[in-house]
Amino acid sequence: MKPEISNPTMKDVAREAGVALGTVSKVVNGIPVGESYRIRVENAINKLGYQVNSYAQGLRADKTHTVVFLIPNTAEPFYASLTYHVNLVLLRQGYRMLLCCTDYDSDLEQEYIAMAQQNKVDGIIGLTYNPDLSVHKNTPFVSIDRCMGSGIPCVASDNFAGGQLAAEKLADFGCKNVAFLCKSSSISNEPNKRKAGFENGCLARGLHCEMKIVGDNEPYDTFEQFLADHAPSGKMSLDGIFCVTDGLAYFILKMLRRLGLDIPRDIQLIGYDGIRFFGDADYLCSTIVQPVPDIAELCVRLLLDKTIREKPSLLCLPVTYAYGGTTREDAPNSQLY
Amino acid sequence: MKPEISNPTMKDVAREAGVALGTVSKVVNGIPVGESYRIRVENAINKLGYQVNSYAQGLRADKTHTVVFLIPNTAEPFYASLTYHVNLVLLRQGYRMLLCCTDYDSDLEQEYIAMAQQNKVDGIIGLTYNPDLSVHKNTPFVSIDRCMGSGIPCVASDNFAGGQLAAEKLADFGCKNVAFLCKSSSISNEPNKRKAGFENGCLARGLHCEMKIVGDNEPYDTFEQFLADHAPSGKMSLDGIFCVTDGLAYFILKMLRRLGLDIPRDIQLIGYDGIRFFGDADYLCSTIVQPVPDIAELCVRLLLDKTIREKPSLLCLPVTYAYGGTTREDAPNSQLY
Repeated sequence: MKPEISNPTMKDVAREAGVALGTVSKVVNGIPVGESYRIRVENAINKLGYQVNSYAQGLRADKTHTVVFLIPNTAEPFYASLTYHVNLVLLRQGYRMLLCCTDYDSDLEQEYIAMAQQNKVDGIIGLTYNPDLSVHKNTPFVSIDRCMGSGIPCVASDNFAGGQLAAEKLADFGCKNVAFLCKSSSISNEPNKRKAGFENGCLARGLHCEMKIVGDNEPYDTFEQFLADHAPSGKMSLDGIFCVTDGLAYFILKMLRRLGLDIPRDIQLIGYDGIRFFGDADYLCSTIVQPVPDIAELCVRLLLDKTIREKPSLLCLPVTYAYGGTTREDAPNSQLY
Repeated sequence: MKPEISNPTMKDVAREAGVALGTVSKVVNGIPVGESYRIRVENAINKLGYQVNSYAQGLRADKTHTVVFLIPNTAEPFYASLTYHVNLVLLRQGYRMLLCCTDYDSDLEQEYIAMAQQNKVDGIIGLTYNPDLSVHKNTPFVSIDRCMGSGIPCVASDNFAGGQLAAEKLADFGCKNVAFLCKSSSISNEPNKRKAGFENGCLARGLHCEMKIVGDNEPYDTFEQFLADHAPSGKMSLDGIFCVTDGLAYFILKMLRRLGLDIPRDIQLIGYDGIRFFGDADYLCSTIVQPVPDIAELCVRLLLDKTIREKPSLLCLPVTYAYGGTTREDAPNSQLY
């Protein structure tokens, strides 16, 4: 069935859906309404082929319905997933996303922010490791994974709790001697709290814990040496590893296999992020899962919802543990499987 | 050093760089100039803190310096890489990218195109499987991987040559009985040519070839059954497999391992795309590599370069083979290792 009305208006949508005009307006502008109302309005919009004239909307409201999204790249799986989910949330609410991959270039980042401000965008959502980034206070900004100072809320997974959970899981699965492996930026950021959480969890559960923190520009070989040093005669003295990201875990798994070790029999491993390749049902490794769709929703809500007056400086979303083949379900202390 | 000039103009930049005003204009507008000139101008722009007012530029030129990028999602690695590279090329040329993930929703796609046209964007680059997509002929459009009819150039890797190359490599590495595995969309598209190229290569090299084409909505189990049927008593009758994508290869590798097979000893495998995880030096599997940065460059050039009058309807970029651990370097007929 093709739509019968040639240029349907919001009124036509309201009539078709059997709801008040204000309800249609709310749905179109992304303001929450009851689920059943939203569905009726969306069905009516689809049936009639109603098009929001967001350009005109922008002119009326001195808004462009455009949000800049700053991200180092979209090639790394966590960034790729974050970009995808933020994009879907924005588009669903009638906003456009200007994507700016920064490639970790601080000057480029600053340039994109200047561009955003010149173009009167409605706001910026950014994951940036630029400590000197300057954002005009009139431009709403929501930061992911790094606190950037007053007036800029930061959204992150609960990194401390995630580190703690990793320690608890390794303890549950029978580990005694564990290590935390990390590639770390010197710039203060939320993911750095994974270390403190893990230490805390190890202490609480009586695990012996070593730390191997490697600078951002140091090669992965440093980890390979660390692991080899712990397996001098082919026998590994560590029985559990927590990697700061699934990306690092990917490389550590390869190194452990090169040392002739069986995972999870000889050594168990937990990563962080919750990466799955190609929409696979299986995780890359046992992992602490970041709630990426929730992070995306929250960033957009904080940026665009004008009814939120007092914006918290840090908002942490809960993480979960997921089995991904690199931990032992049959471990003696395992209570959860 | 802070810039000395409070509101530097293009003239100030030219004076600082010691070049003609026209040279600055070219650099700012992304028109090629000599490398040394470009660097001088860029240094001067950085030193003075000159900001291009692209909004005003847009008004003057009836251009918004904005390009819509339509892609199913950014979560799948090939799409993620494509998005990243197209984004970098656009930003480098002073263009903004409006990212629109379509989630394979044809209605959404059409809506984003309507939005693009309402907002006077400079053009659209899209990877879309919507057979009925209608694009107004005044809006420049460059398609990736699918020919969409007259006036719309399509950019793709050389899929036919890639399929052929996969067959040649499997023959070089000693295979005799091979299979082509494919998840396939019914909509005509360039990647479908991988099959014909592979068949052709098998014929030329005397390989016995089976085809297993599975519809987009059928489960992966169909492949698992196909593989099990070829290894009734644990011995695999196939010695080589070409998968239509690295994504499919990822699942096929898992299935082969579940059947107790060693790869590449018992069976060799080649994928297509050239996926590497987490910037790893190693490919996920031996693979036909798509030249993603070149695809990105070419799409942007075709879209924005007004000096190209006759736009070819299909532009195929050359592919290469890369070793990724799932083929046998020591195979008797291998000439290249």
